[in-house]
Amino acid sequence: MLNINKNFKKLPGAYLFSTVARLAEEYQKAHPERELIKMSIGDVTRPIAPSVVRAMETAAHEMGTAEGFRGYGPEQGYEFLRSAIIKNDYISRGIELDTSEVFVSDGAKSDCGNIGDIFGIDNIVAVCDPVYPVYVDTNAMAGRAGDYKEGRWSRLVYMPCTAETGFLPELPKTSVDIIYLCFPNNPTGAAATRVQLKKWVDYAKDCGAVILYDSAYEAFITDPDIPHSIYEIDGAKECAIEFRSFSKTAGFTGMRCAYTIVPHELKCDGAELNALWNRRQCTKFNGVPYVIQRAAEAVYSPDGQRETRAAIEYYLENAKIIRTALSAAGLSVCGGENAPYIWAKAPKNMGSWDFFNEILNKTGVVTTPGAGFGPSGEGYIRLTAFSTREHTQKAMELLGNIL
Amino acid sequence: MLNINKNFKKLPGAYLFSTVARLAEEYQKAHPERELIKMSIGDVTRPIAPSVVRAMETAAHEMGTAEGFRGYGPEQGYEFLRSAIIKNDYISRGIELDTSEVFVSDGAKSDCGNIGDIFGIDNIVAVCDPVYPVYVDTNAMAGRAGDYKEGRWSRLVYMPCTAETGFLPELPKTSVDIIYLCFPNNPTGAAATRVQLKKWVDYAKDCGAVILYDSAYEAFITDPDIPHSIYEIDGAKECAIEFRSFSKTAGFTGMRCAYTIVPHELKCDGAELNALWNRRQCTKFNGVPYVIQRAAEAVYSPDGQRETRAAIEYYLENAKIIRTALSAAGLSVCGGENAPYIWAKAPKNMGSWDFFNEILNKTGVVTTPGAGFGPSGEGYIRLTAFSTREHTQKAMELLGNIL
Repeated sequence: MLNINKNFKKLPGAYLFSTVARLAEEYQKAHPERELIKMSIGDVTRPIAPSVVRAMETAAHEMGTAEGFRGYGPEQGYEFLRSAIIKNDYISRGIELDTSEVFVSDGAKSDCGNIGDIFGIDNIVAVCDPVYPVYVDTNAMAGRAGDYKEGRWSRLVYMPCTAETGFLPELPKTSVDIIYLCFPNNPTGAAATRVQLKKWVDYAKDCGAVILYDSAYEAFITDPDIPHSIYEIDGAKECAIEFRSFSKTAGFTGMRCAYTIVPHELKCDGAELNALWNRRQCTKFNGVPYVIQRAAEAVYSPDGQRETRAAIEYYLENAKIIRTALSAAGLSVCGGENAPYIWAKAPKNMGSWDFFNEILNKTGVVTTPGAGFGPSGEGYIRLTAFSTREHTQKAMELLGNIL
Repeated sequence: MLNINKNFKKLPGAYLFSTVARLAEEYQKAHPERELIKMSIGDVTRPIAPSVVRAMETAAHEMGTAEGFRGYGPEQGYEFLRSAIIKNDYISRGIELDTSEVFVSDGAKSDCGNIGDIFGIDNIVAVCDPVYPVYVDTNAMAGRAGDYKEGRWSRLVYMPCTAETGFLPELPKTSVDIIYLCFPNNPTGAAATRVQLKKWVDYAKDCGAVILYDSAYEAFITDPDIPHSIYEIDGAKECAIEFRSFSKTAGFTGMRCAYTIVPHELKCDGAELNALWNRRQCTKFNGVPYVIQRAAEAVYSPDGQRETRAAIEYYLENAKIIRTALSAAGLSVCGGENAPYIWAKAPKNMGSWDFFNEILNKTGVVTTPGAGFGPSGEGYIRLTAFSTREHTQKAMELLGNIL
């Protein structure tokens, strides 16, 4: 008689963003005359850059010709894209990588979730609190999180990121094996400097832990003291896997392309994690569409770089508008300078969901309640800079009226 | 201290197709003057259909416009594609499905592997022998296969598909919980009739097992007695998940689009497997590129159907050429009539690898040794019909000379 993975039954009912979407929908039904402005989900709004579109059209045409057709590609991604990634994102920052250390995939969400396949179930996992829910839920599904009680998983080690800690995690006080870090951070928008990140690398090497480093938002870094890659820190290749994505860098949320770096220096139980991840990907994945890989390659062309940077600047300007407006209205804010996220404290000790509902009901602006990202997110909301300029300005005007 | 998933250490060294590729490469290096003809890997060679290319170009253009741009799509796939799948692949065969039962993905390989996430580790898994290695390796990684000794996994139930059984599996003699079936079969090319498949549905319902039904090759079925979907059998919705792919149907191996059907009727431990798979996909997957989904939709247009059918007919003609040539040379063959695979018995009780090497070294034709698909594949080789006509004819001529 078949039995299911019992860990699924432990997961709390609804995914945060589905709940937010449902509440927004209910509001819109109740107020069909009002405009809904979504400052909630981290989805981009600027179209794909012209040079990237052209590359995709060319590749689509190729696929229809006998000479240009490509069947199964390498599971790890085409050489042309892996080389472009190394040249542009790593060598430019003094980091050497071999193409065999780059794994192209359909998304950082997939990789952050699937990476768990190569680790034992009894590892102790540390996550920031608040945190991107995927790290938690995928470990819960695998059985590494224990049981869920009163908003916490019994076997996870939570690293609170609060106003007191500058919204950055502090080193765990108990022993951990797998550490998820995301800088610039989702949801708080905080980013770690070189000095701060070095502390984590030293810690991980010291206790034989692995850092799963999500740098999906590195393109938004403006401060030269903040590293774009964890491999800018000496020794990181021996203890860290890095996840990157074209989603926010080049507006690829609907295009699906990302990559993960697993250095050969990273070993455990005598095995290279690179070999394990390669085996996992070859067995359960068949690569990214050829046309999408050509599109991603075009992001690195001179035109592609110029065009995608313009979109990043556009979102950073949105972030500035949000920061300025919320600060002017008297809210404490974090993020929005090196990140597309702004983390704002609700006034008068109001709870996250209450503040979320008040904003929604009075203005039609949709935010994300901080409590949905973890216990320490209580009392905060997250806003994103990915909306259009017009919507961002309108939303801030409406918020200014009620705060 | 981090520890790895120990099951990875149990996996035998190299993946079958990598070994075959390496041997072919070595041969080519030793004989640079001879032409290598690959009849081994199941990759297609015909270009993408013109109407599908056009749809992709249009979608690429859309992505570059403010109005047409699409960010994150539904994790389960766009409504337009899910509806087209139901209308064309199911309603046309008298099967009703709701769009919520269709999950669009980047490949049947991914889904066949990832589906294990929703099942308990202690389920007993039955696989055909010979078998597509992904079913075995993904269960081995998850810890369901036990230990690997002398070519067999200790906890897997092998269902031999031999000349004696007509290359179809027989019902297991011991209790099993998860049954992988692939009809038309990879690697033997055998296909089950309605009557034969009903036996499996009745069995699974009887003992509370789930059938994971891989029908990636259904487009090659020519015999009206052979069902294209397991849901053509009464009661199958209560016991089967079906995997389908555009890879072989429309030459999408380099395009990456497939889908999986999880009916709401399919329950276990009081839970709908549909809800579990949906939770898995929403947490670890972010959908298929918009341009690829538009391409897949175009496969169902009248032009798309005509064009992709022409490619299938082309491959079926290749299959016939292979069947005829090998039979004429005195080999026993299975498949090639309702499937793109031909399963041929080596002459004079020769072993798989010996026959593979003899063919490679004497002719430059690359096949796949049957033993690589499981113990009962010993003594056989697999040939695929996906080559060009020219290569197929040339390969058969060369084989004719040495057999």
